[in-house]
Amino acid sequence: MSAPMLLTDLYQLTMLQGYWHEGLAGEAVFELFVRKLPTERNFLIAAGLEQALEYLEHLVLTDEEADYLRSTGLFDDRFVDWLREIRFEGDVDAMPEGTVFFPNEPILRVTASIHQAQLVETRLINLLQFQTMIASKAARCVLAAPGRTLVEFGLRRAHGAEAGLLAARATCAVGFTGTSNVLAGQRYGLPIFGTMAHSYVMAHDNELDAFLSFARSQPNNVVLLIDTYDTLLAVAKVIEAARILEREGIRIRAVRIDAGDLGELSKEVRRRLDAAGLESIGIFVSGDLDEWKLRSLIQQEAPIGGFGVGTRLVTSHDAPYLNCAYKLEEYAGLARRKVSPGKQTYPGRKQVFRRYDDEGKMAGDTLAVADEELPGEPLLVPVMRAGKRVGPVESLEAIRRRTREQLERLPEVYRRLEPAAQSFPLALSDRLQVLIVETDRRLGLAR
Amino acid sequence: MSAPMLLTDLYQLTMLQGYWHEGLAGEAVFELFVRKLPTERNFLIAAGLEQALEYLEHLVLTDEEADYLRSTGLFDDRFVDWLREIRFEGDVDAMPEGTVFFPNEPILRVTASIHQAQLVETRLINLLQFQTMIASKAARCVLAAPGRTLVEFGLRRAHGAEAGLLAARATCAVGFTGTSNVLAGQRYGLPIFGTMAHSYVMAHDNELDAFLSFARSQPNNVVLLIDTYDTLLAVAKVIEAARILEREGIRIRAVRIDAGDLGELSKEVRRRLDAAGLESIGIFVSGDLDEWKLRSLIQQEAPIGGFGVGTRLVTSHDAPYLNCAYKLEEYAGLARRKVSPGKQTYPGRKQVFRRYDDEGKMAGDTLAVADEELPGEPLLVPVMRAGKRVGPVESLEAIRRRTREQLERLPEVYRRLEPAAQSFPLALSDRLQVLIVETDRRLGLAR
Repeated sequence: MSAPMLLTDLYQLTMLQGYWHEGLAGEAVFELFVRKLPTERNFLIAAGLEQALEYLEHLVLTDEEADYLRSTGLFDDRFVDWLREIRFEGDVDAMPEGTVFFPNEPILRVTASIHQAQLVETRLINLLQFQTMIASKAARCVLAAPGRTLVEFGLRRAHGAEAGLLAARATCAVGFTGTSNVLAGQRYGLPIFGTMAHSYVMAHDNELDAFLSFARSQPNNVVLLIDTYDTLLAVAKVIEAARILEREGIRIRAVRIDAGDLGELSKEVRRRLDAAGLESIGIFVSGDLDEWKLRSLIQQEAPIGGFGVGTRLVTSHDAPYLNCAYKLEEYAGLARRKVSPGKQTYPGRKQVFRRYDDEGKMAGDTLAVADEELPGEPLLVPVMRAGKRVGPVESLEAIRRRTREQLERLPEVYRRLEPAAQSFPLALSDRLQVLIVETDRRLGLAR
Repeated sequence: MSAPMLLTDLYQLTMLQGYWHEGLAGEAVFELFVRKLPTERNFLIAAGLEQALEYLEHLVLTDEEADYLRSTGLFDDRFVDWLREIRFEGDVDAMPEGTVFFPNEPILRVTASIHQAQLVETRLINLLQFQTMIASKAARCVLAAPGRTLVEFGLRRAHGAEAGLLAARATCAVGFTGTSNVLAGQRYGLPIFGTMAHSYVMAHDNELDAFLSFARSQPNNVVLLIDTYDTLLAVAKVIEAARILEREGIRIRAVRIDAGDLGELSKEVRRRLDAAGLESIGIFVSGDLDEWKLRSLIQQEAPIGGFGVGTRLVTSHDAPYLNCAYKLEEYAGLARRKVSPGKQTYPGRKQVFRRYDDEGKMAGDTLAVADEELPGEPLLVPVMRAGKRVGPVESLEAIRRRTREQLERLPEVYRRLEPAAQSFPLALSDRLQVLIVETDRRLGLAR
C-alpha cells in the first residue's frame, strides 16, 4: 500500500509549518490509546501495527503532492521543499498485534522529532483504530462460536476497498477461518471461501438445474444455496441432486441458508438430509450474523458447521468507532498533559505491565513510566528504531496464535459477551502518580 | 482509482465459472436498491455513481491476478483465460448523484451479459452504499445547520483510506463547505480546512507563545484552539495575542472549541471577545458533533459560525450500513424474483416516476416497468451504453446544486430529523402489479 503524505488532516501540515517557522524541533513522544471501551466490549485486541509500520517506512511527499500544496496558497515554498526531505526516522514501541488491552493503555508509542511524530497522527489512528475495532468484534465472534468455521463475508458493506481488505485481514488474524474477499486472499495469503448467490438460482429455469450446473462446475467445492424460493422444498431438490451427482462421482459438501429462522431451519434441514442418508452434507449459514446470533444458534444446538459473518462484523455496527487518541505526552524532555474536560491524558512516556494470577489468568495491569522496572510483563515492545523495523514482518499465523493465548488467559468475566460489572483493573505506578502531580504543578494546573 | 477484478466476493467468480461451463450467457438485468430505511432516516441521497462508473470502465483481470486465481486450484485454466478477456460492455441507468430516494427504488440498473452484470456486484454495492450512506447522513447535518460552514473532519476514524476520501467527497457533494482531508482536496478539488491541535499548544511552554507562533506562521488563516487547558482562561490569552498581532498586521480569524458544553462556552467566549472589541473573531466548534448536536446548538442560538463534523458523520454511527441489495430482476427476457422471507424483490427492469404537488414539493413515487410512460419525472437516466459513459463526468458543483434543489422539494415532514410517522408514498404501477402476479405464477410461487 502506498503512503501518500497528503492522506492527513490539513492541520498536521499547518502545525508543521508553525514548528518549521519557529525552529521548534525537539523530541516528542506521542502515544495512541483508547479512552473508553464501547458499552458492548470488555476488552480490545490490538491490530493494524503491520500496516502502520509499512506506512511509516514509505511516507514521502511526491512531486505531484508538493505541487498541490504549493497551489493551495497556504504554504511557504521553502516549507514545501523542506517537507519533501522528511522521512520517518523515529522509534516506535507497540503492543504486538493480537494483544488484549484496555482503556488508557498506550498500544503504540512514537518517539521522534516533533515534525515527524506529529505528521503521522491521522493515518496512524486511521489504520490502528479500524483494525483494532474489527479484530475486537471478530474476537467476540470467535468466543461465541468456539471451534466453528467462521468466514468473513463483509466486503460489499465495508466502508470502501481498504476497509474490506483490512477487515478480512483483522478477522483472520484473530481466528476467523477465511474470507470471501478474493483480493484480501491474494494480498494477505488468507483462505478464500465462496458458494453461490440467489441470482445463480434465479438465472436458471429451475432450482435443480442450478444445483446440478453449479456442482458440475465446482466438483470439489459444492455448497448449494437453498433459500431462494422455499428452503424446505429446496432440500428435496438437494436430495435429488445428490442422487444424480453421486453417479457422476460428485459429492455435495454443504448447503447454505441465508434467511429465515436459522436455528429452526437448520434443524429441519438436518433432519431431512439425515433421513435421506445424506449425513455428510454440512450446513453453512449466513445473514445478518453477529456474536449474539452466533451464541444463540450455538445455545440452540443448531446443527451448523460454519457461519458467514458479514455486514455487522466489518462495520462493527454496535460500535463503529473507538474513542481513541494519539496524544503528545512528552516534549523536549518534559512530560505534557492535556486536561480538556473528559479528555485528560496521563503525562509522560509510558509502559504497561501485566500481572497474572496463579492459574496464568490476567490479574491486572499497571500503567508506569516507560523506564520503570515493575513486576509483570511489559506489553509495549520495540518495533522500530530510527525508522527501521526491529524484526521481520510478523506472520498472521503468529498473530493468530498470540490472540488465542491471550483470550485463554483473559478471565472468564471479560470473555462473556455481556458487559462485565467491573472494568479490568488498571493501577498507576507510584512514579507515574508523582509525574502527574509534577506536571500539573509545572503547567499551573494543580487543583 | 484502480479497479482490480479480485476486489470481489469469491462466489462471483465461482458462479461465473458455472455460467461459463454451462454456456449460459443471456442478458441479465440487475438493480441496486435499499430495502429499508435505517430508523433515523426519512430519505436517502444517491451518491457514488461517479466511482461506480470509473470502476466499470477500468475493470480488468491483471496478469498477477490471473496467476493468483490459477494458484487457488478452484478454477479451470481456460476459464481464467476467458476471464482475462472480460470487459464491462453493458448499459447502466441510474439516479444522478444528489437525488433523494426511498426504499425499494432502484438507484442503479445494470443491463449486460450475465457474466458482466454478476461480476460487478460486490464492488458496486461497496461503492454506492458507502457514499449514499454518508451523503444521507451529511444531508441531515446540512438541514440541521442551514447556512453554516460545515467542514468534514473524520479521516482519522474513517474505516481506512478510501472511506476517508469518499466520505470527504460525499459530504461536500451534498453541501458541506470543505474537508480537513488534504488528499481528498487534491483528488476531488475540495476546499481544505485546518487549524491546530492540542499538541501544538502542549509543545509550547505557554499557550500565548503557541498562539503567537501559529498566527505568525499562518497569517491569513489564524484559527486558535482554546480548550487545551482552560477555555475561558485561554480567551484572555487570545485577547492579549490579538493586541500583539494587530501591531504586526495579523488578524485572528476565529477560535476553535473542541470540548465541554459548546453552547454555553461559545456564548461566554463570544461575550468576552465582544467586550474586548474583538467582534470580528468567529467561533468554530468541533467534538463528537452530529445532526442532533448541530440542531441543539442552533436552537440554543449559540454564536457559532462553523462546525467541524467528524467521527459520527464518516462512520454514519447510528446506521453504519444500509440494508441494500443488487438483485437479478430479469434474465433472458423473463422477469425474475427472489422471495426469501423478508427479502422479496419486485421483478423485472424498472423505472421510478416522481410526482410533484402544486407547490413543487415531492408528492409520491411510482415504481413502474422500465418502458412504461407515466406522469411524473423518470428518476433513472442513461449513464452508460455498451460500456461507455453517456456524458461527461458530473462536477461536484452540479451534484451540490441538485441536492439543494431536491432537499427544497422534499416535504417538510421528511426534512425533519425525527422519523416521519408515515413513509414517503410509493405506488406500484398497474403493469408492474401484473408482472408480479405473472412472475409468481411462472415460478410456481402463486399463493
